[in-house]
Amino acid sequence: MTPPDVDALVFDVFGTIVDWRSGVIRDGQRLDESNRLEVDWAAFADAWREEYQPSLARVRRGETPWRNLDSLHRESLEKLLDRFDIEGLTDEETHQLNRVWHRLDPWPDAIPGLNRLRSEYLVAPLSNGHVRLLTNMAKRAGLPWDLILSAELSGHYKPDEEAYLTAVDLLDLQPEEVMMVAAHERDLDASSKVGLKTAYVHRPLEWGPEQARDIEKPNGSAYDIVAEDLVDLAEQFGSEPMI
Amino acid sequence: MTPPDVDALVFDVFGTIVDWRSGVIRDGQRLDESNRLEVDWAAFADAWREEYQPSLARVRRGETPWRNLDSLHRESLEKLLDRFDIEGLTDEETHQLNRVWHRLDPWPDAIPGLNRLRSEYLVAPLSNGHVRLLTNMAKRAGLPWDLILSAELSGHYKPDEEAYLTAVDLLDLQPEEVMMVAAHERDLDASSKVGLKTAYVHRPLEWGPEQARDIEKPNGSAYDIVAEDLVDLAEQFGSEPMI
Repeated sequence: MTPPDVDALVFDVFGTIVDWRSGVIRDGQRLDESNRLEVDWAAFADAWREEYQPSLARVRRGETPWRNLDSLHRESLEKLLDRFDIEGLTDEETHQLNRVWHRLDPWPDAIPGLNRLRSEYLVAPLSNGHVRLLTNMAKRAGLPWDLILSAELSGHYKPDEEAYLTAVDLLDLQPEEVMMVAAHERDLDASSKVGLKTAYVHRPLEWGPEQARDIEKPNGSAYDIVAEDLVDLAEQFGSEPMI
Repeated sequence: MTPPDVDALVFDVFGTIVDWRSGVIRDGQRLDESNRLEVDWAAFADAWREEYQPSLARVRRGETPWRNLDSLHRESLEKLLDRFDIEGLTDEETHQLNRVWHRLDPWPDAIPGLNRLRSEYLVAPLSNGHVRLLTNMAKRAGLPWDLILSAELSGHYKPDEEAYLTAVDLLDLQPEEVMMVAAHERDLDASSKVGLKTAYVHRPLEWGPEQARDIEKPNGSAYDIVAEDLVDLAEQFGSEPMI
């Protein structure tokens, strides 16, 4: 296969690059130990993430002015603390728990794959996470981005077209010179609609071992590339391993 | 001295981080060899840079809609090719010469200084160069930025206050939590006016050995820090060398 002729690859982050579910469970369980809580943090993580699209949708419909993910996550968190009967957290503990989305670990293939791709292409996140969140995450985890792109730079959350087109504009490229890489068809379908190339990355464990969505890889013809993970993506681009 | 309590340092780039003059001379002289030209590239570099503030000023006054530096540089370049009687360049050679601003080398202290500072602070450019230019420059030279900030993100060139305040907002910080680092008093004075901390870096060779501006270090009391170079800046912050 000849890889698509692009100059830059932009990546969805939550689920595609980092494993948000394990990160929330990990930091939640630390709170159990220090606060003698007994919470089903896997259920908590899933419930928090389930609040995500409805929160974004309220901003996208203009029901609330632009608010960053810390603010949207915090609003959902307050509801969930109540729903899961979690009591006794200090303000600082609640603040730190809300910031767990800055401290998520990459899937094991993410950094090796990105390092291979970045030798030939510009690589950047293009997430609904805000610039500071993505910067903190990259710095902590060592994600080798060339620059940080974010929906925040357009004032519109994905899948609004402004989010993709602002990124293309800042890269000083045309839409067809940029590839969107994501584990979610909705993100790719919206990218494709405004002219970006697309790569689907299969993340069957994003929602844990019992995941019920995105478990089947989509029909290859819908996207320019369908990849098992980021190392496979780099291989399909013909990028050489560094060692 | 106790270093100022900031979370992020943002840096002017042309003159402060990279040596634009030597870069333009270097690439110009290559054109001499390949095209049998005989141009005083030092004078050419200075003349090109002299056009810079007037070009920005036209955008800042609203006489022209937003245009990025490639576009402004290209307009000046056309005039200078004529003024310096440079003929016979192909379109591609002219295009590549215009892009020399993406290929400038850092001053020798820049990367060691940034590496020390980035272990404790967020570090980013905050230049009138556009995002793509700064990304290309960082990738080529290995500048260890945590993220790329640029006046382009505000649609206003420095020293317009929007350029500084948009960067502060994207860092999710308050102005006093951010330090502007520059070799130019005008940039620092504008930063200071909107509440940023300031560090002056002395670059007596920016305009070459016969430089006639910024040769005296300013009165220390005008800025939070006055530094000899970026390693000195890191030392004043108490950042440890890595080796």
